[in-house]
Amino acid sequence: MGNCCQYMGPQKNTYVRVSLPAVCFVWQIAMVILFGVFIRYDKESDTHWVEHKKHENLTDLDNDFYFRYPSFQDVHVMIFVGFGFLMTFLKRYSYGGVGFNFLIASFGLQWALLMQGWFHSPDPATGKIYIGVESLINADFCCAGSLIAFGALLGKVSPVQTMVVTLFGFTLFAVEEYIILDLLHCRDAGGSMVIHCFGGYYGLAISWMLYRPNLHQSKNLHGSIYHSDLFAMIGTLFLWMFWPSFNSAITDHGDGQHRAAINTYIALASSVLTAVAISSLAHKKGKLDMVHIQNATLAGGVAMGTAAEFMITPYGALIVGFCMGIISTFGYLFITPFLEKYLKLQDTCGVHNLHAVPGMLGGFIGAIVAAAASTEVYSEEGLINTFDFEGKYANRGVGTQGGYQAAGTCVSIAFGLVGGALVGLILKFPIWGDPADDNCFDDEAYWELPEEEEDILPPVLEYNNHMINKQDIAESNFTMEET
Amino acid sequence: MGNCCQYMGPQKNTYVRVSLPAVCFVWQIAMVILFGVFIRYDKESDTHWVEHKKHENLTDLDNDFYFRYPSFQDVHVMIFVGFGFLMTFLKRYSYGGVGFNFLIASFGLQWALLMQGWFHSPDPATGKIYIGVESLINADFCCAGSLIAFGALLGKVSPVQTMVVTLFGFTLFAVEEYIILDLLHCRDAGGSMVIHCFGGYYGLAISWMLYRPNLHQSKNLHGSIYHSDLFAMIGTLFLWMFWPSFNSAITDHGDGQHRAAINTYIALASSVLTAVAISSLAHKKGKLDMVHIQNATLAGGVAMGTAAEFMITPYGALIVGFCMGIISTFGYLFITPFLEKYLKLQDTCGVHNLHAVPGMLGGFIGAIVAAAASTEVYSEEGLINTFDFEGKYANRGVGTQGGYQAAGTCVSIAFGLVGGALVGLILKFPIWGDPADDNCFDDEAYWELPEEEEDILPPVLEYNNHMINKQDIAESNFTMEET
Amino acid sequence: MGNCCQYMGPQKNTYVRVSLPAVCFVWQIAMVILFGVFIRYDKESDTHWVEHKKHENLTDLDNDFYFRYPSFQDVHVMIFVGFGFLMTFLKRYSYGGVGFNFLIASFGLQWALLMQGWFHSPDPATGKIYIGVESLINADFCCAGSLIAFGALLGKVSPVQTMVVTLFGFTLFAVEEYIILDLLHCRDAGGSMVIHCFGGYYGLAISWMLYRPNLHQSKNLHGSIYHSDLFAMIGTLFLWMFWPSFNSAITDHGDGQHRAAINTYIALASSVLTAVAISSLAHKKGKLDMVHIQNATLAGGVAMGTAAEFMITPYGALIVGFCMGIISTFGYLFITPFLEKYLKLQDTCGVHNLHAVPGMLGGFIGAIVAAAASTEVYSEEGLINTFDFEGKYANRGVGTQGGYQAAGTCVSIAFGLVGGALVGLILKFPIWGDPADDNCFDDEAYWELPEEEEDILPPVLEYNNHMINKQDIAESNFTMEET
Repeated sequence: MGNCCQYMGPQKNTYVRVSLPAVCFVWQIAMVILFGVFIRYDKESDTHWVEHKKHENLTDLDNDFYFRYPSFQDVHVMIFVGFGFLMTFLKRYSYGGVGFNFLIASFGLQWALLMQGWFHSPDPATGKIYIGVESLINADFCCAGSLIAFGALLGKVSPVQTMVVTLFGFTLFAVEEYIILDLLHCRDAGGSMVIHCFGGYYGLAISWMLYRPNLHQSKNLHGSIYHSDLFAMIGTLFLWMFWPSFNSAITDHGDGQHRAAINTYIALASSVLTAVAISSLAHKKGKLDMVHIQNATLAGGVAMGTAAEFMITPYGALIVGFCMGIISTFGYLFITPFLEKYLKLQDTCGVHNLHAVPGMLGGFIGAIVAAAASTEVYSEEGLINTFDFEGKYANRGVGTQGGYQAAGTCVSIAFGLVGGALVGLILKFPIWGDPADDNCFDDEAYWELPEEEEDILPPVLEYNNHMINKQDIAESNFTMEET
Repeated sequence: MGNCCQYMGPQKNTYVRVSLPAVCFVWQIAMVILFGVFIRYDKESDTHWVEHKKHENLTDLDNDFYFRYPSFQDVHVMIFVGFGFLMTFLKRYSYGGVGFNFLIASFGLQWALLMQGWFHSPDPATGKIYIGVESLINADFCCAGSLIAFGALLGKVSPVQTMVVTLFGFTLFAVEEYIILDLLHCRDAGGSMVIHCFGGYYGLAISWMLYRPNLHQSKNLHGSIYHSDLFAMIGTLFLWMFWPSFNSAITDHGDGQHRAAINTYIALASSVLTAVAISSLAHKKGKLDMVHIQNATLAGGVAMGTAAEFMITPYGALIVGFCMGIISTFGYLFITPFLEKYLKLQDTCGVHNLHAVPGMLGGFIGAIVAAAASTEVYSEEGLINTFDFEGKYANRGVGTQGGYQAAGTCVSIAFGLVGGALVGLILKFPIWGDPADDNCFDDEAYWELPEEEEDILPPVLEYNNHMINKQDIAESNFTMEET
Repeated sequence: MGNCCQYMGPQKNTYVRVSLPAVCFVWQIAMVILFGVFIRYDKESDTHWVEHKKHENLTDLDNDFYFRYPSFQDVHVMIFVGFGFLMTFLKRYSYGGVGFNFLIASFGLQWALLMQGWFHSPDPATGKIYIGVESLINADFCCAGSLIAFGALLGKVSPVQTMVVTLFGFTLFAVEEYIILDLLHCRDAGGSMVIHCFGGYYGLAISWMLYRPNLHQSKNLHGSIYHSDLFAMIGTLFLWMFWPSFNSAITDHGDGQHRAAINTYIALASSVLTAVAISSLAHKKGKLDMVHIQNATLAGGVAMGTAAEFMITPYGALIVGFCMGIISTFGYLFITPFLEKYLKLQDTCGVHNLHAVPGMLGGFIGAIVAAAASTEVYSEEGLINTFDFEGKYANRGVGTQGGYQAAGTCVSIAFGLVGGALVGLILKFPIWGDPADDNCFDDEAYWELPEEEEDILPPVLEYNNHMINKQDIAESNFTMEET
């Protein structure tokens, strides 16, 4: 593979021996310094908790660790195995899919702890950021946004570029999240707006800026093989199974977490059936397409990100999943090719159909469900509790809340599109070591690849009871050709 | 692959473009309507819980979510990744294994929420079904039954047929479970009887009805390849690791969950060693067979499904696992070939050896352990608590309980065999788009397959320092043949 | 593959049809007997707990099950899927990697329950061992030690030898753990010393004793292929994601578990970036090496094993991860080849760089952090609580504690080296059925392998619109060669 590429014509320089280590070191050292200055254990993870516990007459279980840690681990699996393996579907870019995902998320979660801390919870007296298990979940959530963007760029960018996408992506994320959750006081438990909608449009805008007119030159690698699709199914299933944990990880203790998990579970089940139905309907012989099974089945979870903690009812969750399975599969069938052809937008993983659109719709669904809330259904206290109508928001009505939720969705789209366009501009500089158009979707560019699979076949093949060496076959062929 | 099949002789019509979408849509729409009419959040997942909590002086942690959710997620992984990947072992039916498993379980869990609700817990006043995390676990359990049945049919049925198997399977499951758990008042925490024994015989009976005399025509695809066996090991290990959660997920809070997890953990460890021993002993050179490692190692968990919550003792659990590893491996070595040859029963995954027999034995083991229970070992309250000797069962003795447990096992076998035979009859109609005998175990029938793996090899091979194009080799060969 | 090996010259006898089943049966029967004599449910997993709970006025949640079970399951996944799949990276030893890992751990956890029970917690009155969820975690921890050792030996030993390594490994582990934790009263939550350092040196010493001068004869199988590296990434990621659970699984309830998880999470993130940086820097074109990504990214977790529960600060954790990513990657680049060439030490998985050295350094880091502890940072009670300065250790100072921690690290190295050398001696007897030098890294020796992958290719290929049968090509080639 390596050798042959040298005969495939001119190509851009994918040499990242200086830039990649430099970026990793500089950013990691910056993290060390910033962590040293800003980050501390919060009350519940500090050794002083023993005294605090006695003083407040708490039990060990009152530590938030026991409310959130199992959900945290599920979310963690989604970020690293879920997103990572979902992106192994390309026949020759599986290392890049899972490996760069690993790199992005590992850097990103550190940067997220800082950014989210600065925006949401710095101690007013000391300026320090106090972290606990909920911070870890939020950091992982933050990763999801940039990993979604990476999905649109998969195979077309260098690892250095992914680090740039991550640095800016996390920064933008923290700002838009601050605006949506703190300033507009929206609820967005599973991040339909702040994660999926933002991440999707962010990735699409970058990809649009980085349009490659000659990407067809890498066409032979822009597809899957049998086993790469199976690896991707590992990602799909872990995302699908743990999505109830994703949407419930930071909701209110008690009924909030419980309800969010149930709603997501139900919506996802429904997505699977409609995705299968449309996939089969779209093929002339009724055959299923792995792309739809791997992606569109998840759309119900994306769209429940905002409304999962509300009283959307199990029936409502089912309808959301139902519609999203259809919309997402249609997207893969018609919208992605349309975007590529007419809008010059190349979206490797189809994040438009799995994240951008279902995330946006999820935001609006959340707005509608919020606006339709009533004390009858929620109970007086339940309503206050669910929408956090406390402090200066004590008098906000559900209608107003619905309006703000819708506005929040628009904010996330705007941040995604504008931020993505700017980052895309930065990435157009010819200094990042990205691959040439005929060299995309190929791990060869950034990974030392093992020898070919052929080499595991036995060196000697038996034909008609004679032992022939492969080399002999080759030679005989060759001789013959010359004669 | 697609082309060549056209030359392989006549074949049945695997066209499911109408039937599959129709079934998916009709059933999913039915679910939406039925959920709308019947399903509501239970007390602990409703926003009213905030008030209830105050009223009852509860803490957040008293929400059942915190007792059951981690186990629920483990069970969820078993259903989708465990069963799904275990069924990827066939060389060319991995998509069908993991994909149809996904479809079955996604539809099934919705239907299970309804069926189990109707049978077990409809509100007498309103007729509504109130769901919480325990309902989700039970719905997943219900899936296990039909997925086991699917294991026997793997590669021989169409996706439409799997949906029919699921619809009837879940219905039968709910009825037999109602009879066994409610009417006979059996204990069956991990479902040796209601899940494994029923599911196993249900699948075997269907498979027996659908006997294919010419299945040997698909013989070349009825086996594994190196990497498909590795994918299957993912399934095996997730089933094996999370089985303690499966058997303890719905047992009593506190010691019940604790003990069930320990017993299952121990029994499974023991199964591995005896499965390895028999597998090695059975091969003339002592080599291990992946089929045994993938399946028989799990038999200890199946057989502990009923007794895991009892005081079977760690020593007893070890013996159960010991015997099951042997019995199950023997089954794969001798019983499955025997069944196929003499009883005309084709059992793709060998569910007879992993589910039917260990499940049945697990039921009887449970009966014996129950009958042997004493207040000395259990303590007075412990005995009442473990066997739920309350209300109208307050005076039931342990001997009687043992009898009922044994009777329950027989009920599950009867339901499996009779129900399976009837469903098999229905599936014999020539309307379901199932593959022909020479077309089984082939994803080609229902999946759009990617190009062959060969295509990832470099287009140019270097022999003796000359560059030869593959095409040239082919041409030269061909020319030569003609001359 | 099978046939051709017969022509590859003389080889040792890998016949294990007698020895493997014999070892499995004998050891499993011994377990049954010893469990019968010694092992009982502990207070919280016994049915008597219902009465105990009432008596002590506890709630269901006070059962340790709810504090530890989610972490236990994460650790369980690390042992079986994490270690198992990490060892599938070899192109033709994936079955052995994941399969023997399964066998070792399944036997080992039983033996660990006994050994750890005897050393740590036998009831003084009855001599019984009482087990609960914490015992299961400790048993899994114990497995990690021997699985690390197996990593050094991967592909070069027979399954019977792995069972011997396990038997002695677990015994040595229990003794060194008793000395370090009980006699020296060290703290070692995540086992940098007792697990990683011991396991690493134990494996290296065995491998050194079993040096194979002609191992280069198996060189063609001593590497990975594209998809085997992806399978290994499954192992890497599950280890990486769940390491916070590993290091926090048996720490103090409340802040102890919380802090250990946070510290490990942070350290691991940092390791990824420096491992990537060094890997890229070391390649002439800046390409990444999968070996480093699979292994060195985990080094931060290993090194945090001791200090994770201390107040190392998030900043300190970041620095530890930073350094370990560098050291471990350097190890893979330079130390492993050096050891092989000059010290005659063949270390298949490079456990020297991932476990031995980071574990040792982790022990010393723990010593330093312990010695630097102060009541200012920890609070009076927090200090006592964290270092367990109670009973006869009430007056131990932090400086002394640091000294003992360092001494403990030395004990673990000594046990690993001396124990490993002795076990290596035992394994040199020519009775264990280990493979010959030219037969290493080959599943063929101990596994019944499926047919080659080639067989899934279509039997008919289409060239230039003519249908040619593969067989014809072969024949034509052959004919030609003869003429």
